[in-house]
Amino acid sequence: VFRDFFGGSNPFADFFDTNGDFMTGFGGIRGRGRKKQDPPIERDLYLSLEELFHGCTKKMKISRRVMNDDGHTSSIRDKILTIHVKPGWKAGTKVTFPQEGDQGPNNTPADIVFIVRDKQHPLFSRSGNNLVFIAKIPLGKSLIGCSIEVPTLDGRLLNVPVNDIVHPKYTKKIPGEGMPLSKDPTIKGDLVIEFDIQFPEQLTPEKKQLIRQALLI
Amino acid sequence: VFRDFFGGSNPFADFFDTNGDFMTGFGGIRGRGRKKQDPPIERDLYLSLEELFHGCTKKMKISRRVMNDDGHTSSIRDKILTIHVKPGWKAGTKVTFPQEGDQGPNNTPADIVFIVRDKQHPLFSRSGNNLVFIAKIPLGKSLIGCSIEVPTLDGRLLNVPVNDIVHPKYTKKIPGEGMPLSKDPTIKGDLVIEFDIQFPEQLTPEKKQLIRQALLI
Repeated sequence: VFRDFFGGSNPFADFFDTNGDFMTGFGGIRGRGRKKQDPPIERDLYLSLEELFHGCTKKMKISRRVMNDDGHTSSIRDKILTIHVKPGWKAGTKVTFPQEGDQGPNNTPADIVFIVRDKQHPLFSRSGNNLVFIAKIPLGKSLIGCSIEVPTLDGRLLNVPVNDIVHPKYTKKIPGEGMPLSKDPTIKGDLVIEFDIQFPEQLTPEKKQLIRQALLI
Repeated sequence: VFRDFFGGSNPFADFFDTNGDFMTGFGGIRGRGRKKQDPPIERDLYLSLEELFHGCTKKMKISRRVMNDDGHTSSIRDKILTIHVKPGWKAGTKVTFPQEGDQGPNNTPADIVFIVRDKQHPLFSRSGNNLVFIAKIPLGKSLIGCSIEVPTLDGRLLNVPVNDIVHPKYTKKIPGEGMPLSKDPTIKGDLVIEFDIQFPEQLTPEKKQLIRQALLI
C-alpha cells in the first residue's frame, strides 16, 4: 500500500529510530465508490532489546485524509498514534489502530497495524525469552578457566566465573537474566552465554612442544 | 493420493532401499465420469550419495488399473517403471512417467512423478556439487598439525596433511573430490573438510601450567 504512494519499499525506515517518531503517508486519494473496508495497512515497528526489556511508549505521527464537515470534500490531517510497548513483547506482536486509514465518501477506512520487529543489538540476540551473549575468550583461558564480564540490558555488569573446560559447543546459562515475560514481567528468562574461542594464529616449535606434553601425552 | 488407498503417510518407504524396488498402490477405483487428467501422483525417490555419484538404474514396480479390451471393464496389472539416474542429479530432480496412473473409462490417467531426495549418508553431506566431511581431531593435533584420512564415495582413502592451526571455523577444500556435475560428470565439485575439535574433559594442574606457558605467556 505504501509503495503505491511513494514508490520505495520502505520509505519510513528512518522514522522509527527515536521516540516521537514522525511518519507520513497513510494518505492517498481513493473514492471509487467502494463501501467495504480497505485491507489493513501494515507497518514494521522496529524496537531495540532495551525498549522491549523495559517497555516504552512510541508516538507515531501519521498523515491521513479525513472528510470535511460538508461530507464530500476532504483534507490531509496529521495525527499521533501512541503505542504502549509492554516489557517482554516479542517480534510479531501486532498493534491495531482500527479505521485510522484514509477516509473517503464511500469507504470504511483501513485499520493501521504495527508489527513488532527486533532491531539488531550489538551484544545480544533474543531466543524466545532468553538472551544469547557470545563471549570471546582466548583458547588458553578456555582450558585453564577464567572469569568473564557480561553487561546486562539494564546497565549492570555480571562477573561470571567459568571453571569448566570450554569447548566450542559449551554454553553457560544464567537464570533470570533474560527478557521479561510479557504475562508477568517480574519473571525473566535466562541469559545464555556461548563462547567464541580464539585460537592462536601461529605457535613456535617450543610452544608446540608444551602443547604436546599437555594434550597429547 | 497414496494416503487415500493405504491410510499411512509413506507406505512405500521400505521399498526404495534396494535395486529392483517393489511398489504397489498406484491403484484405486475411480470412474465418476471425469474426462480431464487426474493430478500428477508424486513420490519421493530416496537415493544414496553413492547412487547419485555413480548413477544407477532403479526399477519401480507399480500396480495400476488398466482397461480391458472390452472398453468398460478393468483389471489390476503390475508394471515396471525404469529410472535411469544420472551421476550428479540433485535432490528435487523430477522424473515423469506420463499417464501411468489408473486407467478408467472416462479419464486420462495421471502422470507418475518421482522426485529425487537425498538419503542421509553416514560420512558426507552434500552442498550443491560439494561434499562436506566432518573430521574429528583432538585439540592437541589441531594446534600441532596432523594428517587425516578421508574416504571417498568411490572407495579410495585420501591422506590429507593439515599444517595450519585448526580453529573451530577452519575448513580445508580439496578440489575435484566432490559430486560429479550432471551436465558433465567428468568435472566434479569440491570436498570440504570441516573440523570437530575434541577438547579434553579435564586437565591436571601440571598440564594447565604447560598450557599457560604455551598459550598465555
